[in-house]
Amino acid sequence: MNLTATNAVLDDAPVNLRAVDGTIRALGPDVKAEPGDEILDAHGLALTPGLVNGHGHAAMTLLRGYGDDLPLMEWLEDRIWPAEAQLTQDDVYWGTRLACLEMIRSGTTRFWDMYWHQFDIARAVMDSGMRASVSQVFLSFPGAPADARPEAAPEGLDRLGEFGPRVTPCLGPHAIYTVDEAVLRVVAELSDARNIPVQIHLSETEDEVTECLTARGCRPTEFLDRIGLLTPRTVLAHGVWLDDAELELIASRGATIVTNPASNMKLAVGKAFRYRAAREAGIPIGIGTDGVASNNSLDLLAELKLLALVQKHTDQDPKVLPAAEAWDIATGVAAPLLGGTPLRVGSPADFLLVDANAVEMTPSPLVDALVYSGSGAVVQTTVVDGVVLMRERHIDGADEVVERVRAISRRIRTS
Amino acid sequence: MNLTATNAVLDDAPVNLRAVDGTIRALGPDVKAEPGDEILDAHGLALTPGLVNGHGHAAMTLLRGYGDDLPLMEWLEDRIWPAEAQLTQDDVYWGTRLACLEMIRSGTTRFWDMYWHQFDIARAVMDSGMRASVSQVFLSFPGAPADARPEAAPEGLDRLGEFGPRVTPCLGPHAIYTVDEAVLRVVAELSDARNIPVQIHLSETEDEVTECLTARGCRPTEFLDRIGLLTPRTVLAHGVWLDDAELELIASRGATIVTNPASNMKLAVGKAFRYRAAREAGIPIGIGTDGVASNNSLDLLAELKLLALVQKHTDQDPKVLPAAEAWDIATGVAAPLLGGTPLRVGSPADFLLVDANAVEMTPSPLVDALVYSGSGAVVQTTVVDGVVLMRERHIDGADEVVERVRAISRRIRTS
Repeated sequence: MNLTATNAVLDDAPVNLRAVDGTIRALGPDVKAEPGDEILDAHGLALTPGLVNGHGHAAMTLLRGYGDDLPLMEWLEDRIWPAEAQLTQDDVYWGTRLACLEMIRSGTTRFWDMYWHQFDIARAVMDSGMRASVSQVFLSFPGAPADARPEAAPEGLDRLGEFGPRVTPCLGPHAIYTVDEAVLRVVAELSDARNIPVQIHLSETEDEVTECLTARGCRPTEFLDRIGLLTPRTVLAHGVWLDDAELELIASRGATIVTNPASNMKLAVGKAFRYRAAREAGIPIGIGTDGVASNNSLDLLAELKLLALVQKHTDQDPKVLPAAEAWDIATGVAAPLLGGTPLRVGSPADFLLVDANAVEMTPSPLVDALVYSGSGAVVQTTVVDGVVLMRERHIDGADEVVERVRAISRRIRTS
Repeated sequence: MNLTATNAVLDDAPVNLRAVDGTIRALGPDVKAEPGDEILDAHGLALTPGLVNGHGHAAMTLLRGYGDDLPLMEWLEDRIWPAEAQLTQDDVYWGTRLACLEMIRSGTTRFWDMYWHQFDIARAVMDSGMRASVSQVFLSFPGAPADARPEAAPEGLDRLGEFGPRVTPCLGPHAIYTVDEAVLRVVAELSDARNIPVQIHLSETEDEVTECLTARGCRPTEFLDRIGLLTPRTVLAHGVWLDDAELELIASRGATIVTNPASNMKLAVGKAFRYRAAREAGIPIGIGTDGVASNNSLDLLAELKLLALVQKHTDQDPKVLPAAEAWDIATGVAAPLLGGTPLRVGSPADFLLVDANAVEMTPSPLVDALVYSGSGAVVQTTVVDGVVLMRERHIDGADEVVERVRAISRRIRTS
């Protein structure tokens, strides 16, 4: 099915967009629909690229609002882990479906995920119509799921690769403090041999740094580098407690950092990501929501405002992270590895139609409004791979997903 | 016209609400509509109080997104002041109308305002259907509007009092550095004689503190107290740079602080409001969005999440400002002077119907979802004074307001 969006606005000028087989084939004021095209009337709506959520744990929507405001270990031990222990593959599927709904409703077209039951996650991604990098997870502790053992990885990656072009396999070792060094070396080899990205939590808390210094005599980034896991294929989630030498090292290796401001603030990890220093070092930077359990939202536009504000606040400088720079982060321009899809002929037909005349946006310039004024609710239409996933804020099948998740939630919450 | 909302949910139980002449007359599972009542079918929606925006400059919606990311003085001198100099009374009316639309759409039913052309603001409040405390403004500099001179105040207050019960007059001396001491004393006398609240900016920046210490030999709060302006009728906006003694003094005088986290962070005033210390001192605390020019949103739920996150972040403690406490701040429970309207028989019929089953809220407990997951977009219906201002997210006449503001914006923006 081919698709033509008509009468949209791009850079304050009228534009039409024609997609053929999921790819943008024409973009301009004079582009015409051809017979048989699905027509998307975009009159008065602004055309923008889709957003990229660079780090999260989608299925944790199941735990939204469960144990808010608790200290980290009490939250994990009394709430999150007992609830997670009860999750079935089907639960993870429905939790991921709910996350996809929320992301589609707020303009995200592609996300990076790390959670158990990767094949159910991949199935949910396919059924939702989105794009995602889905992790083959690695965890080294007694009782870790069989899927999270290194010997399961080659076959796991193969299977993840079979879901379809919208699912991109990646390697997801959880963190340096939860995965054995030998396993991390296997991950490095697999990433190299298969040319596959790796996403890993790094330096989220000060404790992680202190423990690494004690146990290994170096900081976490240096440790990652020693075992060959700091490459242009690496996505580092959080990266809060990085010193200057680590930023230089990350830059020199070409790795990407994805910052998660809401989660960092809600869990009170102690400082803000060093955005200005990271940018000045030349590091590609993305943004993520982290899991809903520690956010509690997947609205990337809200997250973007938070990022810009916390950076200005921290640096005591209103010029830091201006709107255009923030927009480049949200759309993946600032971190090519994350797989953002620019609006141009030949790109995947992933795009949004946004109500630029919404009360909440009036009378701001568009990008300023998206970064500072909007929320995902201004997105009217979300298209991925040339398929309309949301039209005028309606998504087929949403009610069933909400009902399913409510039922799972009642079952797994013990308090 | 009387109104009965049926089949709503309150504390997880079904509830109906009947309002007569703008007052809640009955609330409970067995309450029935009477003949002639307007019926509001609230099936599946949660009933909550309306939100109170404790500080702002509504008409500054006209300047949304104009000069984002600039240093404070450049922003004021090159953008805000030149644009403001062109504003007519009619412009202020339409800017305030747009702000009211945005607040109604995001669940605010009452707001505190401080801006020029108070009668046009009051007219916009009345036409919008909201409640507001509208300031008789005081400014002491050459060229200040005639309305902002102390001799205009008594008549101004009288006129503000005549708009109707939804407009509450208050005194709005801008700040201690923009209003002469003699004028501040007039304000104190008027507040005392007429029993009228005062709202004033206080200790927003460190410069304000330094200048006060230099010029007057005391800190801003002590100065306010000396001239009789620190009373249970006082609303202090911002209150960022307060030391322990100032917090004690504010508490002992019974004054209220309204914190504005987005504005403080966006303008990079240098630190966060000392929430925990202020609360421990026993100070009533409210939340405000400040003007849209420095936010750039009037969504109080988004502001609330930001407040909770920045406080946890600053104190390095996830337990600070838990969801229930945040909700009490947003609804005015934590600061009675602000005029929040609790859901009970005899209260003004100001309430919201919220889509608790929205994708973004599922499957969280309601209050956690409102504070951490939601945005104003989950509000389906807003009722003030027993009148339905928004129904299923539709507000009559919204398009005209948006068009008017766009036209004004084109006229006043010079770059």
